[in-house]
Amino acid sequence: MNPLVLKGVLPPVATPFLNDEVALDALKRNLKKYNQTGLSGYLILGSNGEGVYLSEKEKQRVLEAAREAIPEDMIFMAGTGQESTRATIRLTNQAAESGADCALVVTPNFYKGGMTREALNRHYLTIADSAKIPILIYNVPQFTGINIAPELIENLASHPNIAGIKDSSGNIGQLAEIIRTTPNGFAVFVGNAPVFFPALCIGATGGILAVANIIPEACVEIKKQYDAGNLEKARQLQADMTPLARWVTSGHGIGGLKTAMEEMGYDGGLPRLPLLPPKKHDLQSLRELLQPFRS
Amino acid sequence: MNPLVLKGVLPPVATPFLNDEVALDALKRNLKKYNQTGLSGYLILGSNGEGVYLSEKEKQRVLEAAREAIPEDMIFMAGTGQESTRATIRLTNQAAESGADCALVVTPNFYKGGMTREALNRHYLTIADSAKIPILIYNVPQFTGINIAPELIENLASHPNIAGIKDSSGNIGQLAEIIRTTPNGFAVFVGNAPVFFPALCIGATGGILAVANIIPEACVEIKKQYDAGNLEKARQLQADMTPLARWVTSGHGIGGLKTAMEEMGYDGGLPRLPLLPPKKHDLQSLRELLQPFRS
Amino acid sequence: MNPLVLKGVLPPVATPFLNDEVALDALKRNLKKYNQTGLSGYLILGSNGEGVYLSEKEKQRVLEAAREAIPEDMIFMAGTGQESTRATIRLTNQAAESGADCALVVTPNFYKGGMTREALNRHYLTIADSAKIPILIYNVPQFTGINIAPELIENLASHPNIAGIKDSSGNIGQLAEIIRTTPNGFAVFVGNAPVFFPALCIGATGGILAVANIIPEACVEIKKQYDAGNLEKARQLQADMTPLARWVTSGHGIGGLKTAMEEMGYDGGLPRLPLLPPKKHDLQSLRELLQPFRS
Amino acid sequence: MNPLVLKGVLPPVATPFLNDEVALDALKRNLKKYNQTGLSGYLILGSNGEGVYLSEKEKQRVLEAAREAIPEDMIFMAGTGQESTRATIRLTNQAAESGADCALVVTPNFYKGGMTREALNRHYLTIADSAKIPILIYNVPQFTGINIAPELIENLASHPNIAGIKDSSGNIGQLAEIIRTTPNGFAVFVGNAPVFFPALCIGATGGILAVANIIPEACVEIKKQYDAGNLEKARQLQADMTPLARWVTSGHGIGGLKTAMEEMGYDGGLPRLPLLPPKKHDLQSLRELLQPFRS
Repeated sequence: MNPLVLKGVLPPVATPFLNDEVALDALKRNLKKYNQTGLSGYLILGSNGEGVYLSEKEKQRVLEAAREAIPEDMIFMAGTGQESTRATIRLTNQAAESGADCALVVTPNFYKGGMTREALNRHYLTIADSAKIPILIYNVPQFTGINIAPELIENLASHPNIAGIKDSSGNIGQLAEIIRTTPNGFAVFVGNAPVFFPALCIGATGGILAVANIIPEACVEIKKQYDAGNLEKARQLQADMTPLARWVTSGHGIGGLKTAMEEMGYDGGLPRLPLLPPKKHDLQSLRELLQPFRS
Repeated sequence: MNPLVLKGVLPPVATPFLNDEVALDALKRNLKKYNQTGLSGYLILGSNGEGVYLSEKEKQRVLEAAREAIPEDMIFMAGTGQESTRATIRLTNQAAESGADCALVVTPNFYKGGMTREALNRHYLTIADSAKIPILIYNVPQFTGINIAPELIENLASHPNIAGIKDSSGNIGQLAEIIRTTPNGFAVFVGNAPVFFPALCIGATGGILAVANIIPEACVEIKKQYDAGNLEKARQLQADMTPLARWVTSGHGIGGLKTAMEEMGYDGGLPRLPLLPPKKHDLQSLRELLQPFRS
Repeated sequence: MNPLVLKGVLPPVATPFLNDEVALDALKRNLKKYNQTGLSGYLILGSNGEGVYLSEKEKQRVLEAAREAIPEDMIFMAGTGQESTRATIRLTNQAAESGADCALVVTPNFYKGGMTREALNRHYLTIADSAKIPILIYNVPQFTGINIAPELIENLASHPNIAGIKDSSGNIGQLAEIIRTTPNGFAVFVGNAPVFFPALCIGATGGILAVANIIPEACVEIKKQYDAGNLEKARQLQADMTPLARWVTSGHGIGGLKTAMEEMGYDGGLPRLPLLPPKKHDLQSLRELLQPFRS
Repeated sequence: MNPLVLKGVLPPVATPFLNDEVALDALKRNLKKYNQTGLSGYLILGSNGEGVYLSEKEKQRVLEAAREAIPEDMIFMAGTGQESTRATIRLTNQAAESGADCALVVTPNFYKGGMTREALNRHYLTIADSAKIPILIYNVPQFTGINIAPELIENLASHPNIAGIKDSSGNIGQLAEIIRTTPNGFAVFVGNAPVFFPALCIGATGGILAVANIIPEACVEIKKQYDAGNLEKARQLQADMTPLARWVTSGHGIGGLKTAMEEMGYDGGLPRLPLLPPKKHDLQSLRELLQPFRS
């Protein structure tokens, strides 16, 4: 891996569509704006990027477009987790060839009963052995119905090609356990914006936050104030950001996220079906939540 | 649609692999044996067929091979549900062109919060409008984390191209509600072997049962005895079959299913990673459970 | 125990209140009417009897009043499960002294993590050893958050003073497993009205059904038709009764149950707080559901 | 209420038994030792006090004994939540007469479907209106299966006799939301030891921590270091304490807690059945976890 340090704030970048087709120009426009905001890098093809809605070819094109727009000194992380081990390896190495720095691998989840500790352990070790770039584990029980145990993460963290984790469970006790039991260089990103500040307090490396698609500067500022020791300020910024983060994630999902991006001058568009955009009558509350963040 | 009646017993056919590659010959060998057992038809590329582990091309080849081996007077149902509406339509119509009679469409499930009643309703109606073959709804909350409400099914059942449902929830109260609220021709398959007999009692059309990959004759016999009014006999056959059904599904999953197939002379092989085969020391209990079904 | 056979239909009798105080006369009036309806007996102080809302003294008075109104040839079952083993034994033997024939003991449930198989096993065996009347196990996961495993029930069923089970999980697969693995004389009651008919089909002994507080004759008739081999008729009666059963249980709880009782000429009254009665605007749907059952 | 400020560290005091009977002398001995450790006060008859296993009379005697041993300048909080509103009011005012400063009222939880927002709102307001001492809300979904929504807490917090909340969900995002939406004087205690430090970081008032029955000084020290601005030190102390906290709560429950108390020189004894003590072979790991805290 290149010497990029895995830390700071990354958005799980939304994939814009135009007439239901991937809009690569819009994606690159967004990335170029984000490049000016203090973000450390990007997660491309993550959950918020509607990765599961893209065909194999579309994924390839998104990765290539992203590479063009992401500066070399920013992290380019690609979401490459598929249900099978072999498909994950293939997509991970495809991402590597497209220039991604590292890959985020969500826990497979369709056969929930089969995703035993042994199965997950072997899945991640097999991928790490074969991947040409470092991988990170992605734990997101609200989507997958599976929570990967801290004991398993502790074991996986000793593999030289497993570089970190994104934990979106929102479970700070579990995050603390992960931080306590993994080595110092192991990157621990929180994926849940409402607990970004407490995650920093317990030692998280950074955040991969959907809301950073909308208000990247505000997310970066929380980290900056925390790093400067201004805890009270950081806590206040977090409290200001939380209601918006809730509106876009637990409230209105990717449809809401994309609408909010449009409101803030980014290219969002509609999500692919079956995801739906928010209702008209929900926009008023969104605009009120965005007001404090408009420059 | 052709005049095939949707009823009886269908196995969700396992996909055999040889050296981790799809083994089409083995698949066809299995189907030809199954053709002699009294089954009404087949579900190809269902959950037990490891559909989520196959590439787009592999799916195509499996459908074509299945068509060669399935007689015209048996049901050829294809599992075509993908996360996005558009990918589901594409795969459904590809299956139609490959000669499938109908398609089984699992509820999309990654973005659980976004799978509102409205989103699911629009998903199924859009697919039904565009599909060249009738579709059935597939409800399997233990895999998807989503349960589709009987009220929604009642609404969808009025669409002329939505022909039925496979419900694997194991919830007989819900199944009864579905039967009560849908029109007479709407096919209601139960997808949970341990409740096959009670499902028949409340009026289910048939069963799509993983265990029918292993002991098709025994599954068919339950239906036959029930139809003949021999309830006590049917109940007894169910009780005899249940422990095996539990071993292969809740117990050992697809890896267990494939091992049990091998034991009974079918081509099973290994599942793809991350799924694992059963442990050696679990085989003894399997063999005891299979003993009564060996001819 | 007296030679009463544990079978048939029993209501978990609601406890009427007058000005928030236990109304023993109303209770006895209800029981005397129920005595004419073909019911096999009664569960007093069950979940639907608001047992958890009664003081130790109130429970005693309810048991004594019930004894006065219940004929000797009908089953008098008392709900006596408390959180601690010792309190359960005390209340069970108090019920025995008040003339109850048997006791229904719900799984303790506050300390969910502590209710291991070993803890539950010891709980039931200790009570069975000390109880002066036979006990039945009560499994109701929707209230307790605990599901008692069929393997444990199989073990407990061999104790001479454990006479049966009431299973309200609604899980017919599990009920079948319980019936399959317990001896013939072990009484298996289903506690979930919408699956009463399928439960009979798989061999259940009877039902303890909240809706039997409202329409006892209709519940008894399902059993009668099933016993006479009129399956189609029994299935139809079940389908007619299900929507009402859903309204009063999953829909409106004990407040709804009591309102429905009033509608049908029984003494219901209000539940104790924090339970609330149904809203005025919900009564219209209730009345429509009750219409077919009015004589 | 007396001018005691609700903050700092309180143990939910375990109730010692001798030959299965409440051991009041042992309870008072424990309290007198705890009085020297820097704790702010005590929760008597909480979940860890096996309140649900005590008869009405036993509760009364425990409250009276506690009053004798608790200094006037320490908080005396009593757990008084019962299933019914009226029983809760009665026990709360009995606690007031016994000298408790305030009462902790767990969400009623047996009739889960009936515990709507409206029902819980009315429950708490009715109790607050009638209680002679301030009450606090107790949210502990892992025991109750019910999570009280932050929006409801926000509403209840405006009642002059509702003084605060103990939230044991472990959900730091929710705790932050509660702190953000309630007035400054509203006491917010975290009830989950592994997240004590992050809870302080987001502004929690204090902790009611089971592990404070075992190592009160260590719990108090985390708060002290946090208050002094020594975040790194506080975080380290938290990390040192977490494994023990997990062993006694998620691991071995009240039986484990009492054994650990014995190990540290407090009177623990056995829990009441059906709770069980830890197995002999689990004691070795406990002793290793306790070693760093022995003076």
